[in-house]
Amino acid sequence: MRIVVDAMGSDDYPVPDVAGAVLAAQTWPDDQITLVGQADRIEVEMERFDTSGLGLQIVHAGEAIAMDDEPAWAAREKQQSSMHIGMGLVRDDEADAFVSAGNTGAVLAVATLHTLKRIRGVRRPALAAIPPLPAGHFVTLDIGANADCKPSYLVQFALMGSIYAKAVLCRSAPRVGLLSNGEERGKGNQLVKETTELLEASDLDFVGNVEPKEAMARQVDVVVHDGFTGNIFIKTIEATASMLSNLIRDEIKSGPLTAVGGILARPAFGRVARRVDPFEVGGGPLLGVNGVVIVAHGRSNAQAIKNAVGQARRAVRGGVVEAIRSEVD
Amino acid sequence: MRIVVDAMGSDDYPVPDVAGAVLAAQTWPDDQITLVGQADRIEVEMERFDTSGLGLQIVHAGEAIAMDDEPAWAAREKQQSSMHIGMGLVRDDEADAFVSAGNTGAVLAVATLHTLKRIRGVRRPALAAIPPLPAGHFVTLDIGANADCKPSYLVQFALMGSIYAKAVLCRSAPRVGLLSNGEERGKGNQLVKETTELLEASDLDFVGNVEPKEAMARQVDVVVHDGFTGNIFIKTIEATASMLSNLIRDEIKSGPLTAVGGILARPAFGRVARRVDPFEVGGGPLLGVNGVVIVAHGRSNAQAIKNAVGQARRAVRGGVVEAIRSEVD
Repeated sequence: MRIVVDAMGSDDYPVPDVAGAVLAAQTWPDDQITLVGQADRIEVEMERFDTSGLGLQIVHAGEAIAMDDEPAWAAREKQQSSMHIGMGLVRDDEADAFVSAGNTGAVLAVATLHTLKRIRGVRRPALAAIPPLPAGHFVTLDIGANADCKPSYLVQFALMGSIYAKAVLCRSAPRVGLLSNGEERGKGNQLVKETTELLEASDLDFVGNVEPKEAMARQVDVVVHDGFTGNIFIKTIEATASMLSNLIRDEIKSGPLTAVGGILARPAFGRVARRVDPFEVGGGPLLGVNGVVIVAHGRSNAQAIKNAVGQARRAVRGGVVEAIRSEVD
Repeated sequence: MRIVVDAMGSDDYPVPDVAGAVLAAQTWPDDQITLVGQADRIEVEMERFDTSGLGLQIVHAGEAIAMDDEPAWAAREKQQSSMHIGMGLVRDDEADAFVSAGNTGAVLAVATLHTLKRIRGVRRPALAAIPPLPAGHFVTLDIGANADCKPSYLVQFALMGSIYAKAVLCRSAPRVGLLSNGEERGKGNQLVKETTELLEASDLDFVGNVEPKEAMARQVDVVVHDGFTGNIFIKTIEATASMLSNLIRDEIKSGPLTAVGGILARPAFGRVARRVDPFEVGGGPLLGVNGVVIVAHGRSNAQAIKNAVGQARRAVRGGVVEAIRSEVD
């Protein structure tokens, strides 16, 4: 397996990106892990580790796309960026997958417009997430690649999400739900209502509308929505979890007895944190382009980058791109 | 102050509805609280309390709208429902406000189509929520009255929300944010982009896009969105909080030492629960109709109903309806 890791991606690049790539190379020693980015900076970081015998290599990229770069501009103007060169390796079949914790909009633009390009027949590539929830993993898409969608896009998202759920989450018959403001048929905005008719006429296992609660309880394997709604959905889960965690910590610390209780209960809080840790999943796939691309969180640590590589490996092994190609065509 | 409480509203009607009305009458002894619904059932419930000297009265309604009734149908066919009669009292100036924990869609339909009607100039009434979050109260609307919206609706939501924030939450200069998938100008779906231009040209204190995290941290006083997005937003907050609470409880209980810690920390958890308790707010206003209408949660207990009455009182005292009438006109 040949995985390319963007060394210039994360908020603290290249530190977690390089450390994560080393961790991945240690975990899967038969793989070839390629770090793309500013070679001298990558080398400095790599010196912190004993990398002898590992399948690690560096490919230099003269430019880097920043988190606050305007995506379309950066994709057009920084053709020597680590994203262009990294996804170029996948396009040229010199690698199997690309992992980046960088500017999400730029990853989308470089992938769809400048390197890998859309799979023939795919109307819009979609960014998917696998939220880290205790009820178990599901695929939720689109979370931001397409703010405005047509019903036909959502039907393709459902198809691509089902393929991913089958290939990567090992669901033999993925159930698809449409995120809506009510479970009853007929609830929803115009987009949801029109998409419902198309999904009912499809070969997918469509169960109808799901509300956030049902989606999060994993009553379905694939949750479909436009990129605007999906982005609000995912970010509201994150914001609520973070707010509640901070509130609980503050209230526990605010009294001596509750503080002792908090110390005793610490292992339980640790288990909770692990069960909802976004870094355990590592990243979400960009589906619908000619190659496996995993987008990790900008705040990723080394463990998250390593897990994103793991996600990429499963997508490659599951033949996600090939399956989308044959089923969409 | 004359407040009408729907006795046939909540999931366990008339028990919490009557108990909440009694609690409200005890809390505000100068008010006249009118319970509308099946008189004999209300009387049976009222006998559990000493109501002598309280300003409580019963108005009989021969029909009740059920939670699973189709709203438009129920509003059309059940003209003797507690909702019709209760809001009729407000329309006829025999009461100042109506509170119901019943079928939200039916409250909307009965209010806008059959009793109070839209305020002249209001394009679409909106259902607002005041989420119980530790950062403090803000108004977020629409949360479900209008699944599909035009930019001009959202501008009116911003205006009505600002009026409510001023009159009820006592914000002298309410700041308005547009819920979006990114804070930068230019982020958002087509609706958000078009609404941005209109809000920038308005007299409102519009600060631009807000993401869920910023909205929940109360960086603004009014959060505006279409009813579909808002419903997903509110329900995702609820679902995440509930999921995380259950997860923490289960993990704490799963070991003897952490369980002891949980007992010691219990007062802290109690404080957390109170700071995010939806029943503390009681309900959200339906804005844009000719009368104060507060919609409470179907699962409301007596305390929630009482707090919804409190919310109604503040809206009446703040002159919300009159302010919307004069500012929209």
